[in-house]
Amino acid sequence: MIQTVETTAFLQNLFMIAITAEAMTAAIAAGRREMDWVGVCLLGCVTALGGGSVRDVLLGHYPLTWVAHPSYLLITGGAALFTIAVARYMHKLRKIFLFLDAVGLVVFTVIGCNVALNLNMPVVVVIASGMITGCVGGVLRDMLCSTIPLLFRAELYATVSILTGLLYVGGLALGLDHDIVTGGAMTIGLALRLLALRYGWSMPKFVYGKESR
Amino acid sequence: MIQTVETTAFLQNLFMIAITAEAMTAAIAAGRREMDWVGVCLLGCVTALGGGSVRDVLLGHYPLTWVAHPSYLLITGGAALFTIAVARYMHKLRKIFLFLDAVGLVVFTVIGCNVALNLNMPVVVVIASGMITGCVGGVLRDMLCSTIPLLFRAELYATVSILTGLLYVGGLALGLDHDIVTGGAMTIGLALRLLALRYGWSMPKFVYGKESR
Amino acid sequence: MIQTVETTAFLQNLFMIAITAEAMTAAIAAGRREMDWVGVCLLGCVTALGGGSVRDVLLGHYPLTWVAHPSYLLITGGAALFTIAVARYMHKLRKIFLFLDAVGLVVFTVIGCNVALNLNMPVVVVIASGMITGCVGGVLRDMLCSTIPLLFRAELYATVSILTGLLYVGGLALGLDHDIVTGGAMTIGLALRLLALRYGWSMPKFVYGKESR
Repeated sequence: MIQTVETTAFLQNLFMIAITAEAMTAAIAAGRREMDWVGVCLLGCVTALGGGSVRDVLLGHYPLTWVAHPSYLLITGGAALFTIAVARYMHKLRKIFLFLDAVGLVVFTVIGCNVALNLNMPVVVVIASGMITGCVGGVLRDMLCSTIPLLFRAELYATVSILTGLLYVGGLALGLDHDIVTGGAMTIGLALRLLALRYGWSMPKFVYGKESR
Repeated sequence: MIQTVETTAFLQNLFMIAITAEAMTAAIAAGRREMDWVGVCLLGCVTALGGGSVRDVLLGHYPLTWVAHPSYLLITGGAALFTIAVARYMHKLRKIFLFLDAVGLVVFTVIGCNVALNLNMPVVVVIASGMITGCVGGVLRDMLCSTIPLLFRAELYATVSILTGLLYVGGLALGLDHDIVTGGAMTIGLALRLLALRYGWSMPKFVYGKESR
Repeated sequence: MIQTVETTAFLQNLFMIAITAEAMTAAIAAGRREMDWVGVCLLGCVTALGGGSVRDVLLGHYPLTWVAHPSYLLITGGAALFTIAVARYMHKLRKIFLFLDAVGLVVFTVIGCNVALNLNMPVVVVIASGMITGCVGGVLRDMLCSTIPLLFRAELYATVSILTGLLYVGGLALGLDHDIVTGGAMTIGLALRLLALRYGWSMPKFVYGKESR
C-alpha cells in the first residue's frame, strides 16, 4: 500500500534534534536524584537512544543506530553534560522538561514508523514501531529515576504517539510529499500534547473501586 | 534425545487463550493504578507478548511472533479493553487475576519449551526458555505497575514454571503423545499453583537477620 | 588501530570467577527481600549473565553465552544456592557484597571490551560494550530487588567501568601483552573502586534546588 520511503535529510536533521532534546530531559530528570556526572551522561544516552535500540532489537534490525554511528553516544552524553552546566540558570525546568520530552516523542514516533516502513512491515507493526521508538526512551529514563513513567500518568502521551504515527502512515498512503507529511504529523502531534498538558486533557481513566478488589 | 516437535493446532489454540488471559490480567492490574484506556491496551500487549518477545530476542529467533502476526497486537489490546468494560461488574477480581495469571504461566511455559525444542536447544536452555516465556510478561506488567513482581513473592510461581517445563520435556523424551504431554504438564502445573495459592504453600524463604547486614 | 585479540584462557578463567561472584551478590541481595530458593537461583542467573546477554543482543552477537554454554546457568544458580547455605555464617555481608560486586564490575568490563574488539567495533562502542557488560547485571539485580541501582548512587561505579575499559583498550593499542593489560586494567579499576568505597570518593553530584522545579 505504502511505498518504501527513503530516510530524508529532513528526517535525519530531526533525529539529531530529538536525541539532543531527549538527552536534555534525562539530565533534568537526573537533577531530581543525586546522580553524578557520569551517571547523567549514561542516562542521557539511554533516554535518547534506548527507544530506537529496543525497536531495532525487536525488529531484528542490525546494527543498532549507535553501533553504526558511535558519535551519537558522544553527542547525547555531551548534550546531557551541557544541560547540567546551564540548568541552574534556567527557570521553569519542569516546563522545559515536558516540552523537550514532547518534541522527542513526536519526532521519534515518526522515525520509528519510517524505519518499519523501510523494512516493509505491516501497518500495525509500523504504528507499534513508532510508539516503541517514541515512548521507550522516556519510560527507561523514568524507571531508572524511580518515578512513575510519564507514559502511564500523562496527558494523552501514548495517544499522541499513536495519532502521530497514523497521520504519518496515512499521509504517505495518500501519496503526499514525505517531508510535508512528516512535518504535518509532528506538528499536529506536538500541538495536541502541549494542549493536553496546558489544559489537563486526558483519556478516560479506568479505576476500580477499592471495595471490589 | 527429544525429537523436534511440531507446533500443533492444540498448542496454537492454547496460545490464543493464554495471550487473552494475560492481557486481561494486565487490565485488572492497570485498574489499581490510574491508567487511561490507551495505557491499558499497551500494558495488555506488553504483558501478553512480552515474555515471548524476550525469549525470541535472547534466542535470536526472528521475526518475533507479533511482527509475523500483527493481529495479536489487536487481539491483546482488544482483550484488555473488553476487560475494562466488564470488570466493574465482576466480583472477586483478585481471584480472577490470580487464576488467569496462572493459566498464562503454565501455557506460556509449555509454548516457550516448544519453541526452544524446535530450535534444537539443549535441555537446560529449553527449561529456561519456558520460564522466560512464562514469567517475563507478568514481571514486566508488575514492574510497569510498580508492584513487587508475583515471581518473587508468590507461592511456588517460578517453581511451577520449572516443574511444568520438566514434565513437558520429560514426557516428550519418553515418546508420549505431544498433545497428551502438553495437557498433562499444564494441568499438573496449574493445579500446583492453584493449590499453593489456596493453601499458602511456598518454598523455604531465605532471610538474613537484620543484625548481620 | 587495535588488533583483533583472542579470548585467552586467562580471560576465560576470570569469566568463571566473575559469574560466580555476581551470582553470590544476587544471593546476598535476595536475602534482604523474602525470596524463596528458586527466586534466588533465578536472580543469580540474571545478575551474572544479564549484562553479557544485553550486550550480545545489542551487538547482534548470537548465540548468547548461556545458550552456547548452558552449564553457566547451572553454575550461577548453584553459586547462588551455595551462598544461601553459607551466608548465615558469614559476617560483614555488606562488605563482601560490595567487594564481589566490584570484582564482577571490572572483570565483566574487560570481557565486554574484548567481545566488542573481536567484532571489530569502533573504540566508543568497545567502551560502551564494556560498561554494558559490567554494569547491567547489577542494575537488573537492584531493579528486581526494588533498590536504587548501585550504578546511580555508588562511588565512582560507572567511572571505574569506563576507566577500566580505557586502560584495557589503551594498553592493547600500545601493543602490550594481552594478559598483562587485562590484569593491569582490572587491578587498577578494582583498587579505585575499593578506595572510593573506603573513603567515600565520588564524582561531583548534580542536584537542582527544589525551588527551581
